[in-house]
Amino acid sequence: MPTLILVRHGQSQWNLENRFTGWWDVDLTDKGVAEASAAGVLLAEKGLLPDVAFTSLQTRAIKTLHLALEACGRLWIPETKDWRLNERHYGGLTGLDKQETREKHGDEQVHIWRRSFDTPPPPLAAGSAFDLSADPRYAGVDVPMTESLKLTIERVLPYWEAAILPVLASGQTVIVSAHGNSLRALVKHLSGISDDDITGLEIPTGQPIVYEFSAAMQPGERYYLKDR
Amino acid sequence: MPTLILVRHGQSQWNLENRFTGWWDVDLTDKGVAEASAAGVLLAEKGLLPDVAFTSLQTRAIKTLHLALEACGRLWIPETKDWRLNERHYGGLTGLDKQETREKHGDEQVHIWRRSFDTPPPPLAAGSAFDLSADPRYAGVDVPMTESLKLTIERVLPYWEAAILPVLASGQTVIVSAHGNSLRALVKHLSGISDDDITGLEIPTGQPIVYEFSAAMQPGERYYLKDR
Repeated sequence: MPTLILVRHGQSQWNLENRFTGWWDVDLTDKGVAEASAAGVLLAEKGLLPDVAFTSLQTRAIKTLHLALEACGRLWIPETKDWRLNERHYGGLTGLDKQETREKHGDEQVHIWRRSFDTPPPPLAAGSAFDLSADPRYAGVDVPMTESLKLTIERVLPYWEAAILPVLASGQTVIVSAHGNSLRALVKHLSGISDDDITGLEIPTGQPIVYEFSAAMQPGERYYLKDR
Repeated sequence: MPTLILVRHGQSQWNLENRFTGWWDVDLTDKGVAEASAAGVLLAEKGLLPDVAFTSLQTRAIKTLHLALEACGRLWIPETKDWRLNERHYGGLTGLDKQETREKHGDEQVHIWRRSFDTPPPPLAAGSAFDLSADPRYAGVDVPMTESLKLTIERVLPYWEAAILPVLASGQTVIVSAHGNSLRALVKHLSGISDDDITGLEIPTGQPIVYEFSAAMQPGERYYLKDR
């Protein structure tokens, strides 16, 4: 049966430093590396071996994928990287310390930026060191200057429909290694979660989430692989 | 201009143990990991950054690619893995210690198996522990039971023509992370080396080899990137 495995990347350097990251390309910490490998060990233990892989253009998700695939003996499967699986773009908050931002803008405002469904953070300032418009990785991509979760969903779901769903529908086991918000977009869609509830749903790092699909491509209940 | 970078994987466990490897999937040693990363550091230092990657279905080449790409900040480029870039299949010699094989079969016979252009080693015995016919990695592939260099070339070159050359011809810098004999196949073709001479040409591990192509897609002289 078609099976979807979602994995959020392990701890990154800026997760550790408590900074807003978004599209900025930070690496995994040693803990993040260990989390990624452990995800692959779990896949091997449970005998749930991916046939095809998708990931973002961000190092932390790509490395998580590679480490997990290596740990389950599947480094050889096809993989496709696409910017539409990137993390939500955090706009002008990119690089800022979360605590300092709360002190400067107030808890309430930061909560809105982090947890509102459709209010994006302020856009990245023109000329910001975090502007990726000219990065060759995003050649041909209209790089956003900020994104709400709603805007993130609006680029993730068309990619899901066009690229990932057809592979699943061919009966394969698909792994998607991505980010808190690009995975929220998928979970919202597949589990039918409301706009209000999805922003509070935490996707744990390095913990494979599974959906099994019916022959008619209806997703079943999502579960953590560790619980089976 | 279109540029091709060839990288032979770093030292593998069976390179270290002096055993015939072929299609058997052995990992890199710590030295092999260091060689792969050093290749990527050299790419970065020389400013020769790949846009697109190709590799085999074998862990040692895939990991070499990933380590080199990470070291030059290009982990995000598209990569395609294909069995036609695999190492030559060493048939019944797979897994054997090279020295013991010489003692058993004689230097001359082993030299023929290793260095003949078109004499393959004896085929893998049916039921051998090294038979990969049922490996899901090779689903749909008519897995050889042995290969000469000539047979290796006969699967590498059609893939070169169909998959790699069109990407190069679009003006991109392409990196191919592969194996001693699949790279010999490409070097023989691109540098016009005779059947007799190619078997003696050593491709060093972890040392990027470069071809720059003319607008008419004629390859120039090959060179080691370290020498430029």
